[in-house]
Amino acid sequence: MNKVEVCFSPKLFELFDTSESIVVVVDIFRATSAMVTAFQYGAKSFIPVSTIEEAKAYKDKGFLAGGERNGEVVDGFEFGNSPFSYQSEEINGREIALTTTNGTKAINVAQESAHTILIGSFLNLQALADHIKEQGRDVVIFCAGWKDRFNMEDSLFAGALTNLLLNSGTFYSDCDSANASSLVYRSGRRNLMRFLQSCSHRKRLAHLNLEKDVEYCLQRDITDVIPILKDGKLVALDAS
Amino acid sequence: MNKVEVCFSPKLFELFDTSESIVVVVDIFRATSAMVTAFQYGAKSFIPVSTIEEAKAYKDKGFLAGGERNGEVVDGFEFGNSPFSYQSEEINGREIALTTTNGTKAINVAQESAHTILIGSFLNLQALADHIKEQGRDVVIFCAGWKDRFNMEDSLFAGALTNLLLNSGTFYSDCDSANASSLVYRSGRRNLMRFLQSCSHRKRLAHLNLEKDVEYCLQRDITDVIPILKDGKLVALDAS
Repeated sequence: MNKVEVCFSPKLFELFDTSESIVVVVDIFRATSAMVTAFQYGAKSFIPVSTIEEAKAYKDKGFLAGGERNGEVVDGFEFGNSPFSYQSEEINGREIALTTTNGTKAINVAQESAHTILIGSFLNLQALADHIKEQGRDVVIFCAGWKDRFNMEDSLFAGALTNLLLNSGTFYSDCDSANASSLVYRSGRRNLMRFLQSCSHRKRLAHLNLEKDVEYCLQRDITDVIPILKDGKLVALDAS
Repeated sequence: MNKVEVCFSPKLFELFDTSESIVVVVDIFRATSAMVTAFQYGAKSFIPVSTIEEAKAYKDKGFLAGGERNGEVVDGFEFGNSPFSYQSEEINGREIALTTTNGTKAINVAQESAHTILIGSFLNLQALADHIKEQGRDVVIFCAGWKDRFNMEDSLFAGALTNLLLNSGTFYSDCDSANASSLVYRSGRRNLMRFLQSCSHRKRLAHLNLEKDVEYCLQRDITDVIPILKDGKLVALDAS
């Protein structure tokens, strides 16, 4: 039996021993949903960087580059973290340097200790669960949160993935965060959009002005692509 | 309207601006439940200290002293954090120095910034909610957690208090942690004991070997006493 745990914030990640574990990084609105979409459209790799300056340096070297802060595309970048911006032929075969408010930060925090880093979203949920079940390793679902705070959409996803793993019979949980996420998901699963509108931070979602993006990111199982970190870059698992 | 927020771990507390807020410190199993019990039995004050050495120094000066680590009373102390140990005539009128694994640490973290610090438990839940409603201040419910991790029992309490404040019509929440706590409480409220047995970290609760303490701490509204921090000491609000 392997265990599944959930980490609610980058500030709590150091409490988890992940040296032999798979860490699934999640930033549903919208970094990890956007990354999964980009691989679905043929991106070759993502280079997660922490600062705007690093992303600009990659751009100057001819990479595609994305920069997002507080939900907005940073001036001078073609890409932010809207999944729609990556649904383009221009993406095919390209390497993309990306910095976002929460998602790339979480990837870089996880890099310091995790055995394996995978990228999760509702878009590739089932494929991700199926892959994880084959690995025989413990799992930490790492919610990027919002500026280090707990957020509802990432824990909804954590609950959905926790349930799939527990239902397989080869995982157990003695992690209160995993069990609470599972309860949250059971409360919301019938209609994720309505659930988030009723109980998530409405101003934050409204401020992002993203109803279409939010709807897109809450679609389940539209692709089998699984991004995995190899040598500091995210690549699609099949192509790795 | 005032806002209610929930902090799931001492590591996240710095994300909340509490300089004008009431902070309710919660460590249901068992520090804050024990403190409320001690005041119910006439304790004069609690001095929350961070280390065993500090608690010993107070003991040498003639104070009562309590020390708990990992659920056990530390050698050389009369008191740990079992509420039953404070149900004694010996407590009446006495000052008690106490250090615990999670609860006193959270109080000391909160002291660095909070406007007001109150102590919460299921034992004094309604009295606490009624008092808070009269203050006209924002509230942060601060879960001590378990060694900086999220735990189910503290967030259950946070959800119960959040619901009482929201139902009063003078509080709002745009905090995802508060809303998730509220969902957790709604899942468990019919039978808190059975709920925790089914979905909390069973080994941790079993290891503590505390079924009687757990049952005691889940009783609701058995006292109106509200501990408040004044000049570094906890005292009963009415007597302050």
